[in-house]
Amino acid sequence: MTFRYELLRTDPSTGARRGTFHTPHGPVQTPGFMPVGTQGTVKGLTIDQVAGTGAEMILGNTYHLALRPGPETVRALGGLHAMFGWEGPILTDSGGFQIFSLKDINKITEHSVVFRSHIDGAIIDLTPERSIEIQEALGSDVAMVLDHVVALPAEPDEVQMAMERSIRWAERCLNAAGRSDQARFAIVQGGLDVPLRVQCARELSSMGFEGYAVGGLSVGEAPAEMYRITGATTPELPTDKPRYLMGVGRPVDLLESVMRGIDLFDCVMPTRNGRNGLAFTDLGPIKIRNAKHRHATEPLEPECPCLACTRHTRGYLRHLFIAGEMLGPILMSLHNLTYYQRLMQGAREAIEAGTLAEYVAEKKRGWGIS
Amino acid sequence: MTFRYELLRTDPSTGARRGTFHTPHGPVQTPGFMPVGTQGTVKGLTIDQVAGTGAEMILGNTYHLALRPGPETVRALGGLHAMFGWEGPILTDSGGFQIFSLKDINKITEHSVVFRSHIDGAIIDLTPERSIEIQEALGSDVAMVLDHVVALPAEPDEVQMAMERSIRWAERCLNAAGRSDQARFAIVQGGLDVPLRVQCARELSSMGFEGYAVGGLSVGEAPAEMYRITGATTPELPTDKPRYLMGVGRPVDLLESVMRGIDLFDCVMPTRNGRNGLAFTDLGPIKIRNAKHRHATEPLEPECPCLACTRHTRGYLRHLFIAGEMLGPILMSLHNLTYYQRLMQGAREAIEAGTLAEYVAEKKRGWGIS
Repeated sequence: MTFRYELLRTDPSTGARRGTFHTPHGPVQTPGFMPVGTQGTVKGLTIDQVAGTGAEMILGNTYHLALRPGPETVRALGGLHAMFGWEGPILTDSGGFQIFSLKDINKITEHSVVFRSHIDGAIIDLTPERSIEIQEALGSDVAMVLDHVVALPAEPDEVQMAMERSIRWAERCLNAAGRSDQARFAIVQGGLDVPLRVQCARELSSMGFEGYAVGGLSVGEAPAEMYRITGATTPELPTDKPRYLMGVGRPVDLLESVMRGIDLFDCVMPTRNGRNGLAFTDLGPIKIRNAKHRHATEPLEPECPCLACTRHTRGYLRHLFIAGEMLGPILMSLHNLTYYQRLMQGAREAIEAGTLAEYVAEKKRGWGIS
Repeated sequence: MTFRYELLRTDPSTGARRGTFHTPHGPVQTPGFMPVGTQGTVKGLTIDQVAGTGAEMILGNTYHLALRPGPETVRALGGLHAMFGWEGPILTDSGGFQIFSLKDINKITEHSVVFRSHIDGAIIDLTPERSIEIQEALGSDVAMVLDHVVALPAEPDEVQMAMERSIRWAERCLNAAGRSDQARFAIVQGGLDVPLRVQCARELSSMGFEGYAVGGLSVGEAPAEMYRITGATTPELPTDKPRYLMGVGRPVDLLESVMRGIDLFDCVMPTRNGRNGLAFTDLGPIKIRNAKHRHATEPLEPECPCLACTRHTRGYLRHLFIAGEMLGPILMSLHNLTYYQRLMQGAREAIEAGTLAEYVAEKKRGWGIS
């Protein structure tokens, strides 16, 4: 098999799993976090710096890459791996979520999603088949199926209709797929309705995808709702396939979801918050622009191995942000991605040691979360 | 001696020198180029990346650092070296040139330069003594004296007055200086008037500075004028001290000036042009936004060892600029600084081999300059 999820250990006291997802571009240790390379770059970092944080797999956004530079240019430049300069595995989303977030300018029918490019206003007709075609041109290791995302809260009818359509679209994606070196991950929809989620998970599971995602969450619902839905969905998914919670989230969301059986995550939060001057640490977030850091000679986090922490002070980082220097966002993004990778590494080690619940409790104490 | 310039070889057919400038933070091989860290960072690059280009000494701008974060904050953060995270030597300018470039809002008297902060509008009274005091607080290895820069073209009287004042201010700087681990470099002024330059160089040379700069050039005059003045000034300077041409310049300017006996350079051009999408190469500049690079799979420069050239294509770099991604400016700055360092390394090797004139001629052919 080109793609294989190897389940190494299941945590007896939670639903957490320790595994390895094997891909044509190498293995990914799970639970794992994928930095987001929206437009063909993890914002502000060289690909060596991304690798240096410990990341093993990165994400590219089909919506953005399809519009600019376009799939033909990516193909001409040798595919996504060559273009990024990244030798490890890459996952691409389907474009569905970005289109969802542009919902004022799109029309969704059973056939496709029609939307306007935010770059040049061109009308684009994205079918499930076209999404797969684009992702095959991009050449990612994992292609996500096109799904129908609805904003929450939504009427039960609308949630059910979108869930059922997402299943039909998943099947169309599977039928359209041609590359043997690309896995397809299905996406479970169903809003905050457990029976719909269960039904969707079961139907998709019977279709033989290489992996399964929980989608349509982290769209405004309370964290407890997200945990509840995740926890009700994962038991319905095959144990021998990776499970990916899309677009999540805060450090605590990652740990809560790991305990509910999630293997893979992606989120712009570490880079976006880093660019905005917020650093994640074991003692909670640090707003680096705060005047109290002006003369602070300690690093963001003493035990962190990243360049920002080993070489620089909080006072210097604050100066960079106050002066509007690019290096501020660069160093904070580097720290936050390192933080997320260390958090996942700690979770993997805790699952192996059978101490995940204690690990999570300790982290939450540090963050001041009961 | 804490500071020592070791003259290793003088090129018999030009005025070029191969040397080593020894400082408390290590040696600098000359001719050498100093990247500019205006506000406490070489824009867009981590300090490891700066070191990776081959740079041995960097420059900080006293004007910018004095206003923000301020000398007391730099001192609280352990001085410039600790703040930058840079273990090699650092040179700071005096603040004079930045004030010159704000000439509409400053008043220059024999006592001082009075100007308004561009950040908060505060009135600042910068005397030669205060410039040294600030630079001692910053803790650079080399402090530049405060000089009186005039815009060119200028009336002969004004040029002479400013030159004579610069000598008096240089002496005041010398008298004010207290740190034994900081060298003072004097600055030769005199506009485009060779007799004034010669007089200034001789008077300053008799005062026993640890190094000498040629200032007030690259302010709008023709390159040939700059070369003429540089070539007339360096023979008047001590052979056992380093010579620094301030704020210069294009690759050809560096080589022409090396042939006229200059040892050190600084310029924002590699980083500023890099941020704007222009790459320096042996075949002349590349404007990376040009549509012809859309599908270009070759690197900027095949033999260049920088990350942009070893890992990425011109097509990818173009995409980053078109998409407005930070990584474009980062990679182009990295390439350009690497280019400048390689150019200087090549000049050093050519001086050692006695082939500098051929080296310069070959580079100029590649650049299309006769």
